[in-house]
Amino acid sequence: MKIEQQEIARAGCLFIVSGPSGAGKTSICTPALEEFEDVRPSVSITTREPRRDEVEGKDYCFVDDARFDRMIADDEFVEWAEVHGSRYGTSRRSIEDALAAGRDLLLDIDVQGARQVKAVYPDCVAVFLLPPSRDRLEARLKSRGTESLDALALRLNAACEEIAAFVDYDYVIVNEDLDVAVKQFISILRGERQRVGRLGDDERRMILDTFGKPS
Amino acid sequence: MKIEQQEIARAGCLFIVSGPSGAGKTSICTPALEEFEDVRPSVSITTREPRRDEVEGKDYCFVDDARFDRMIADDEFVEWAEVHGSRYGTSRRSIEDALAAGRDLLLDIDVQGARQVKAVYPDCVAVFLLPPSRDRLEARLKSRGTESLDALALRLNAACEEIAAFVDYDYVIVNEDLDVAVKQFISILRGERQRVGRLGDDERRMILDTFGKPS
Repeated sequence: MKIEQQEIARAGCLFIVSGPSGAGKTSICTPALEEFEDVRPSVSITTREPRRDEVEGKDYCFVDDARFDRMIADDEFVEWAEVHGSRYGTSRRSIEDALAAGRDLLLDIDVQGARQVKAVYPDCVAVFLLPPSRDRLEARLKSRGTESLDALALRLNAACEEIAAFVDYDYVIVNEDLDVAVKQFISILRGERQRVGRLGDDERRMILDTFGKPS
Repeated sequence: MKIEQQEIARAGCLFIVSGPSGAGKTSICTPALEEFEDVRPSVSITTREPRRDEVEGKDYCFVDDARFDRMIADDEFVEWAEVHGSRYGTSRRSIEDALAAGRDLLLDIDVQGARQVKAVYPDCVAVFLLPPSRDRLEARLKSRGTESLDALALRLNAACEEIAAFVDYDYVIVNEDLDVAVKQFISILRGERQRVGRLGDDERRMILDTFGKPS
């Protein structure tokens, strides 16, 4: 009998990466998903119209308003929010199905959404991504749109207020040098996958049996 | 104001790597210590005679029996044990000085010693290193010495009994492919250094101040 390195961490783990808009959440999630082919992104459900290059079921699950209303009524969302007139939500069943099947999920989500998901899944691993400074955050927000100065100031203040939430997370990463931040994030994922607490009863028994006295 | 990536995890962390003799503890510690120049090994105190290539204060602190006795009497050891007629111990003060100064320490230690250190430092990060199979463990133990078959069988059984202790550790790594095991171990260290719980009050305040409203 022999233990495979890949065999010993089988309970699905929910990873959350959050932080203010402009912190760089997508930029650290993309390489992490490439590194771990068995960590899959959680796909949001939205009422927004698909953009040209977006793929149903991969980028989002696109639904109409009536369907979204019914999902709310049926308590199918762990969290949902309205942003710029469209609604976005995270399906409870998609998370539960993945975890029950031992699949790891990565959820890239805003700070309000993360708070709700963590309340439902307290065992999740939550990573907060910090911009390196207020100036850099402002520059990133500016580069994203053609907003008025007033709108930008509002967004910057909202982002700064969200940052106080980092104390409730498991890990914090400062996204100054993206390569360093990605390395730290991938290390957190790889490390967490080696946690003894994630072993199921079968895995524990297998390890003990492997080193039991030969019959 | 700007947060440096290196600045945000300043409380010293005690990392323990343990596992049965033959699991490969030294082989994963050496590259990890090369990767993180600010993680230092804990240096054991021993009554054994120095070997030709061993350096005082680096490999071990060499003391005589009388001095070791006094250190026991003065409760200077977190743990100590007698192995093949020599005594080895871990100094309480060397750990406390390092942690108080915000330095990370790596302790490569047997299973019995690890149990005692964890009892004193419950916040330590404990990693258990598993051999991939009983056969591979036996082969590694064989390759180490010219023991009799009886002595080998005793050592193998002792090692297998120690393996049950893995359930009390934070992380478990199977040392099948050393490169994979090293990568996982380094990831655990790098990840743990990003823990929010390791931030001191000063670091927390600095982050909040950085994103506070400009005065």
